[in-house]
Amino acid sequence: MGSIFGELFRISTWGESHGGGVGVVVDGCPPLISLTEKDIQIDLDRRRPGQSEITTPRNEADQAEILSGTFEEQTLGTPIAILVRNKDARPEAYSEMSEKFRPSHADYTYQAKYGTRNWQGGGRSSARETIGRVAAAAIAKKVLKEKFAPDLEIIAYVKSIRDIEADVDPNTVDFETVESNIVRTGDPNAVEPMVNLVKEMRGEGNSVGGVVECVIRNCPVGFGAPVFDRLEADLAKAMLSLPATKGFEIGSGFEGTKLTGREHNDPFRMEDGKVRTTSNRSGGVQGGISNGENIIFRVAFKPTATIMTSQDTVTTQLEDTELKGRGRHDPCVLPRAVPIVEAMAALVLCDHGLRQKAQNG
Amino acid sequence: MGSIFGELFRISTWGESHGGGVGVVVDGCPPLISLTEKDIQIDLDRRRPGQSEITTPRNEADQAEILSGTFEEQTLGTPIAILVRNKDARPEAYSEMSEKFRPSHADYTYQAKYGTRNWQGGGRSSARETIGRVAAAAIAKKVLKEKFAPDLEIIAYVKSIRDIEADVDPNTVDFETVESNIVRTGDPNAVEPMVNLVKEMRGEGNSVGGVVECVIRNCPVGFGAPVFDRLEADLAKAMLSLPATKGFEIGSGFEGTKLTGREHNDPFRMEDGKVRTTSNRSGGVQGGISNGENIIFRVAFKPTATIMTSQDTVTTQLEDTELKGRGRHDPCVLPRAVPIVEAMAALVLCDHGLRQKAQNG
Amino acid sequence: MGSIFGELFRISTWGESHGGGVGVVVDGCPPLISLTEKDIQIDLDRRRPGQSEITTPRNEADQAEILSGTFEEQTLGTPIAILVRNKDARPEAYSEMSEKFRPSHADYTYQAKYGTRNWQGGGRSSARETIGRVAAAAIAKKVLKEKFAPDLEIIAYVKSIRDIEADVDPNTVDFETVESNIVRTGDPNAVEPMVNLVKEMRGEGNSVGGVVECVIRNCPVGFGAPVFDRLEADLAKAMLSLPATKGFEIGSGFEGTKLTGREHNDPFRMEDGKVRTTSNRSGGVQGGISNGENIIFRVAFKPTATIMTSQDTVTTQLEDTELKGRGRHDPCVLPRAVPIVEAMAALVLCDHGLRQKAQNG
Amino acid sequence: MGSIFGELFRISTWGESHGGGVGVVVDGCPPLISLTEKDIQIDLDRRRPGQSEITTPRNEADQAEILSGTFEEQTLGTPIAILVRNKDARPEAYSEMSEKFRPSHADYTYQAKYGTRNWQGGGRSSARETIGRVAAAAIAKKVLKEKFAPDLEIIAYVKSIRDIEADVDPNTVDFETVESNIVRTGDPNAVEPMVNLVKEMRGEGNSVGGVVECVIRNCPVGFGAPVFDRLEADLAKAMLSLPATKGFEIGSGFEGTKLTGREHNDPFRMEDGKVRTTSNRSGGVQGGISNGENIIFRVAFKPTATIMTSQDTVTTQLEDTELKGRGRHDPCVLPRAVPIVEAMAALVLCDHGLRQKAQNG
Repeated sequence: MGSIFGELFRISTWGESHGGGVGVVVDGCPPLISLTEKDIQIDLDRRRPGQSEITTPRNEADQAEILSGTFEEQTLGTPIAILVRNKDARPEAYSEMSEKFRPSHADYTYQAKYGTRNWQGGGRSSARETIGRVAAAAIAKKVLKEKFAPDLEIIAYVKSIRDIEADVDPNTVDFETVESNIVRTGDPNAVEPMVNLVKEMRGEGNSVGGVVECVIRNCPVGFGAPVFDRLEADLAKAMLSLPATKGFEIGSGFEGTKLTGREHNDPFRMEDGKVRTTSNRSGGVQGGISNGENIIFRVAFKPTATIMTSQDTVTTQLEDTELKGRGRHDPCVLPRAVPIVEAMAALVLCDHGLRQKAQNG
Repeated sequence: MGSIFGELFRISTWGESHGGGVGVVVDGCPPLISLTEKDIQIDLDRRRPGQSEITTPRNEADQAEILSGTFEEQTLGTPIAILVRNKDARPEAYSEMSEKFRPSHADYTYQAKYGTRNWQGGGRSSARETIGRVAAAAIAKKVLKEKFAPDLEIIAYVKSIRDIEADVDPNTVDFETVESNIVRTGDPNAVEPMVNLVKEMRGEGNSVGGVVECVIRNCPVGFGAPVFDRLEADLAKAMLSLPATKGFEIGSGFEGTKLTGREHNDPFRMEDGKVRTTSNRSGGVQGGISNGENIIFRVAFKPTATIMTSQDTVTTQLEDTELKGRGRHDPCVLPRAVPIVEAMAALVLCDHGLRQKAQNG
Repeated sequence: MGSIFGELFRISTWGESHGGGVGVVVDGCPPLISLTEKDIQIDLDRRRPGQSEITTPRNEADQAEILSGTFEEQTLGTPIAILVRNKDARPEAYSEMSEKFRPSHADYTYQAKYGTRNWQGGGRSSARETIGRVAAAAIAKKVLKEKFAPDLEIIAYVKSIRDIEADVDPNTVDFETVESNIVRTGDPNAVEPMVNLVKEMRGEGNSVGGVVECVIRNCPVGFGAPVFDRLEADLAKAMLSLPATKGFEIGSGFEGTKLTGREHNDPFRMEDGKVRTTSNRSGGVQGGISNGENIIFRVAFKPTATIMTSQDTVTTQLEDTELKGRGRHDPCVLPRAVPIVEAMAALVLCDHGLRQKAQNG
Repeated sequence: MGSIFGELFRISTWGESHGGGVGVVVDGCPPLISLTEKDIQIDLDRRRPGQSEITTPRNEADQAEILSGTFEEQTLGTPIAILVRNKDARPEAYSEMSEKFRPSHADYTYQAKYGTRNWQGGGRSSARETIGRVAAAAIAKKVLKEKFAPDLEIIAYVKSIRDIEADVDPNTVDFETVESNIVRTGDPNAVEPMVNLVKEMRGEGNSVGGVVECVIRNCPVGFGAPVFDRLEADLAKAMLSLPATKGFEIGSGFEGTKLTGREHNDPFRMEDGKVRTTSNRSGGVQGGISNGENIIFRVAFKPTATIMTSQDTVTTQLEDTELKGRGRHDPCVLPRAVPIVEAMAALVLCDHGLRQKAQNG
């Protein structure tokens, strides 16, 4: 329960951080989409650990193998299974965790829910779990471009780390700018202070959080559905399903609550024969359905829970104790969260694209 | 598509603001839960229009009829169908909307998606649609209390309207305080300024938004699931599926991104034989699973889109025009949103309670 | 649980035989399908009780009311709720059933599963429950014809009652022939012996079963999916979900197991530019997917469980006793089963049509 | 679409006969169930090819690898991924199939549906696909025994091949008798004639079908649900989702339609404090819900479509041609179908067990 996502483009992820590997099965992918392992590897490489001096030193090649669902470099319409083996696992680094719950981790709740847990690494709660999502999303992106929106762009970037805020225009930011720096922010001026902050935090054995902003450009009108499966509702679920997330907002978000209706409403105007809005506080979605404007949302990531400081905690035997973080961890998850946010957005859009085609195509 | 919610406590809502009525079918409710129409009416009365001087004057008794699924005032385990007739409908107030899209409403996107829409009122995008949710949630609350958590409390309240912020302690706020004022805030000192602001806005034909905060107390440990169906992910989806919402945050939320890991982590300590955290920046959920602490989240509601001012818009014939709001509307949806936020929380919890029982009971 | 059917054309039925009524909510219906209550009434009239001298004398007009999802006689794309009130209920006829389980009915198993049951009539196990299916299927048929297959024909008929077998050619049988006789068989010569048998059985307070055969003509190629959702698998589930069914077979069925591969295989040949098979032992489905030939299947219905004879049974207090049937019942469900079999076939096809469009359209 | 099965014990299978392998992901398995690869291998060995002189000579060890979801030989409650590599693949044997559709195979319908297919072997329509089902069912059986019914027995056996019918009492047949002969029939006297028939058919390059009967003993009362998810409906779907199946019947089945209600009804009687029926024409299910009696059903398997004779067919270029079967195939699928029928029954029961616990536990 809980590892299947999507109604029509349905993905089933699996895997713990320490074990045979991680992966995903994609059911419902349209046939005749060109697909090779390279398409998937590009995105996996963006999320893999050990990319830069500010991410975890865990070194995983994260090489994807497509086990089924393709033939002669095209999808068959049947389930696509993707496998990534775990390689650089060091369970010995976690032996203390077999007896102590790490604060603000999933150790205690997993144990309480299931009566067991794989304490070697985060098990299923590890960010390694997101590999399956990213691999599936690489396919989703191809489906979106080949079937629904050739010009679709999904670009996420670090909007803020702690109190350092990047100055980025979501309407013009480009992928190359974001990928050109190890923080993955869209503001060249913010790179250095952000890198320094993360390094400083790591030096102190501390950690830091921030906000990822994501823009979706050229999304067709009509994606999303009334009531429960509003596009923003499914995006919110997708984003809050990521480890370490604490908040989601779309368009004007929480700040928008301080405006009046007169200030907040987006007037309609015809432009080049299209219905457009002259402002975009709606964030590209109205009534739960995309209106053709840029879809813009933000996701809050808390500071990494693993810190190299002694903290109060309890044992599995329910006694008070202390625990100091070990293992290899990101002092700041934001740079690696960027491709994952994009991935979840792609999965939501692809599913809604197929749903839209089914009902209204 | 999009009108079914929940995996095991599965609700199927239906109905437009103008038409035969609105309602819900609940599939999967456990048997032998005491249930009469009175149980449902209490919550419907809290959300119905015309309650006070600061809500819409539309006058609907919103009388619920249980059509199936109960016998001798207990649930049967079979689907429970609930019907509320539309009474005080005035389609004539909407005739202009047949030809013009209201800004920041769902008119344009519904038309673009479906090629048709019921322009008499908001159709399916009307807040009237939430009646089915509230009715189903009245049952969910009974299931939760009789099956899972007799002491469960779900209390929402207005945290802010525009820039007026209420001072409320989620750990101690009580239902009676919230219900004692027409704004439904938990801070007696905030009532008067909030009421005055709403009245002022209405006087100007304008509208205003704000934030609803919700606390869930005495939720059992273990609700929620790893990966996609994290409790906060399902809460986020539930809340963002409500009309007029723009954001969701749990625990420390967006502000928490400004803390370091050392400041943010919630240390564990034993207390009365239970594992507790000495702070609660996690907001009651860790690794997607409830940890027994109070679950605290906030939902951003934008200002009501309908305002009594002329605004730029386009016609269904795709020509630029202007439109001035008509009809009966809430100048601020917050007071009526309070019971609806509680309702969605109850639906999510009930579903996860049954899921927890299935897998781990 | 168990009252929702379909992935994309998703119906949620509700209602007991004695209570406020029965009905259905259809979620996922495409917009702009012409629909009025008359479209639904035609099929409801075919299944309603009291139609002829060989069906139950219970007299229900079964008048359908569309409560939502249409506007100006077209579907909106939003959920369509349909309500049929119970009128001619006589709970007093069932008072003995409050204490005794009727043999081969659902009384005992419902009580054992839920710890309660509505003993006034069959509750949810009553054939009255199928009203929601038939109403939803009336819409499904319109969607199929307007969106997928204008020439689609779904024709069911009584193939046998007890040991009287009708001689019907599924490739040529027509709707008018079937509807022209009260047994709803496709063989004019079988009508009189079948009617006489049913009357004889009723005269003895006994009952009788039989087989319904159904042919689907002009189904597009490509409906159905590999593995679990094969078209025949979904048809089998649909048919075995009907009250009183004991078997399902498609194409050559059980008799086909007596042929060799050489005798059984359907050779392919081009005909008018189409791939056709020169025989049809596959029954129109190969590899779980429709191949354009006529889809032909049969459904076994057991004799009605309610008989006017004293039978051994036990009480709700778990003591041996006897019970003699009362109430108004069909001595043979076959004639009224015919439109219900067609209805379930339409629901399966419509759902697979939308699925096919989503993935391969 | 179509490769996911189950509501709570949800399996997602994948894989073609020629490609990286086949496998399954099981989501929703309860934690703390003892599980190693050996548990799975036992059942895989029963279905694997090359077991005897009457099955296909394709030689696959079908070694299962558990990639996730277990820790220290117990389930974790997280998804269990199982991988079986393809080894003895011979795509060259299928080169002719790249251009010709095999009669009564899935070649044509897959091509028509998807516009592509993996013509090396049956692709997704190969019986190799059932490996994932059998592997998942090995887990389901353990869950059933450890959580719901320690004495549960699911025993399938060959009831007939062509016109040779075995004489088996489902109430007493035992697993050892069935496994002691290569046909997997429950009647020692039927073994020799059945083996001879299969050999004779193979000698002629022909094939033969038959019926598998399955009995489930000691199933708890209360599994199954009213309306769509009746236990027999889900069993029917499960069985008709297997390759080569043409029919399903439960209890009295098609023959039961020749009885009157008086002959068919199962009287209730108390026995050892339990409600029992003195006959079992219901086949262990009443009103869609198990009643504690033996669940008995039969599944019709057509003769294997691949025969070593020239047959009429068409090319992918839509021209008439002929094709003679090649490759390695079972002349009769029945012996290997036995464990697969059991597997599907176990999957259905396990899912309904969890559903029963969720709603009524």
